[in-house]
Amino acid sequence: MSEIKLLTEKVLAFRDERDWKQFHNSKDLALSLVLEATEVLEIFQWKQGMADIDGVATERKQDFADELADVFCYTLLMANDLGIDLGKALEAKIEKNNAKYPIDKAKGSDKKYTEL
Amino acid sequence: MSEIKLLTEKVLAFRDERDWKQFHNSKDLALSLVLEATEVLEIFQWKQGMADIDGVATERKQDFADELADVFCYTLLMANDLGIDLGKALEAKIEKNNAKYPIDKAKGSDKKYTEL
Amino acid sequence: MSEIKLLTEKVLAFRDERDWKQFHNSKDLALSLVLEATEVLEIFQWKQGMADIDGVATERKQDFADELADVFCYTLLMANDLGIDLGKALEAKIEKNNAKYPIDKAKGSDKKYTEL
Amino acid sequence: MSEIKLLTEKVLAFRDERDWKQFHNSKDLALSLVLEATEVLEIFQWKQGMADIDGVATERKQDFADELADVFCYTLLMANDLGIDLGKALEAKIEKNNAKYPIDKAKGSDKKYTEL
Repeated sequence: MSEIKLLTEKVLAFRDERDWKQFHNSKDLALSLVLEATEVLEIFQWKQGMADIDGVATERKQDFADELADVFCYTLLMANDLGIDLGKALEAKIEKNNAKYPIDKAKGSDKKYTEL
Repeated sequence: MSEIKLLTEKVLAFRDERDWKQFHNSKDLALSLVLEATEVLEIFQWKQGMADIDGVATERKQDFADELADVFCYTLLMANDLGIDLGKALEAKIEKNNAKYPIDKAKGSDKKYTEL
Repeated sequence: MSEIKLLTEKVLAFRDERDWKQFHNSKDLALSLVLEATEVLEIFQWKQGMADIDGVATERKQDFADELADVFCYTLLMANDLGIDLGKALEAKIEKNNAKYPIDKAKGSDKKYTEL
Repeated sequence: MSEIKLLTEKVLAFRDERDWKQFHNSKDLALSLVLEATEVLEIFQWKQGMADIDGVATERKQDFADELADVFCYTLLMANDLGIDLGKALEAKIEKNNAKYPIDKAKGSDKKYTEL
């Protein structure tokens, strides 16, 4: 079994043991995905300058691991419930982005593809 | 190579080809992670009731695949840059949640662990 | 002095007494605005159905007052720092939305203006 | 009539003319509040360093005015629907923050009150 499939099985088992599928319609999963993503961002609140940002990245590595795991958990649950193969979706998105951001135009630029 | 490692290599190759690492400090990656998560949520804006929510889940499946892929992409980049093994982080978080939400107390409840 | 101007003076006084302007570049204010908005949303996490939503709206009214105040505080600070008159900006936006969502087309519809 | 009350009347009139109260339960208003707050933040995506941040603040002032107006609009609607006086809520929150962040401890510090 692929790694993503295996991890999905684990979060589904956690959910099923608690009978939580009833709360997990896709809209509420998306809401929780946003809440977890902002918990990642919150760790950087008021941190300015590379020294501070790198400092907090090291000091609070465990918190980042926990919060990124929560984001990943909701991403896996949503993908599962919507019938999306997350690995394939990412590979397809990289292909799209390759077309939107051709290397010769995008290299070293922070512009959106609409402005390239 | 594990699936997550392989996908990480692909997003890193995409980034390196464009020389975008310079823009990707961890704070700005976290900011983009939040923006992508809200793009998932936006698809459900004003959708109410299970019929509408399930309807949009089907009709806009490709949009969800693209937006979840973006969320996954930034999760992989952050984990890579912070030196976090995302698969292990998720397994460790499931263990923590097993302790925070014991099955006999959490089953069928939507309460936070602080209220169980 | 107008009410919004007066409230802006109060939050500026709070900030200046603590010498916090140094942390308040507009990007970091926008980041905090998002964090506070998600704290409003978090109160509704896993609440489904009108009975639950209305229930939490009543039970946690003080929490909503505090979180909306935080959102308003950062909105006032950003508007002030960017030289924006918030009251006029809102009136101008209502005018724009009047044009984007003409009553005869938008009445009773949850569609985006691009789909009307 | 106070300025905030007057602006609230205007956004309520806009809503009532379109019969949109039916879509505006408080949870969905909170969701839209988050989406609008992230649209403010998105303008700063990948902008780094004070020169870039100040530059975009000037160049895209009208976009900021529009997005902050949207945030303010949803804040007013939520406060109205929840029976909250937004001006009083802000003044009460400033009082609370005065106690949480005493000037002698908080001056010049970016720490959370729990760490002061």
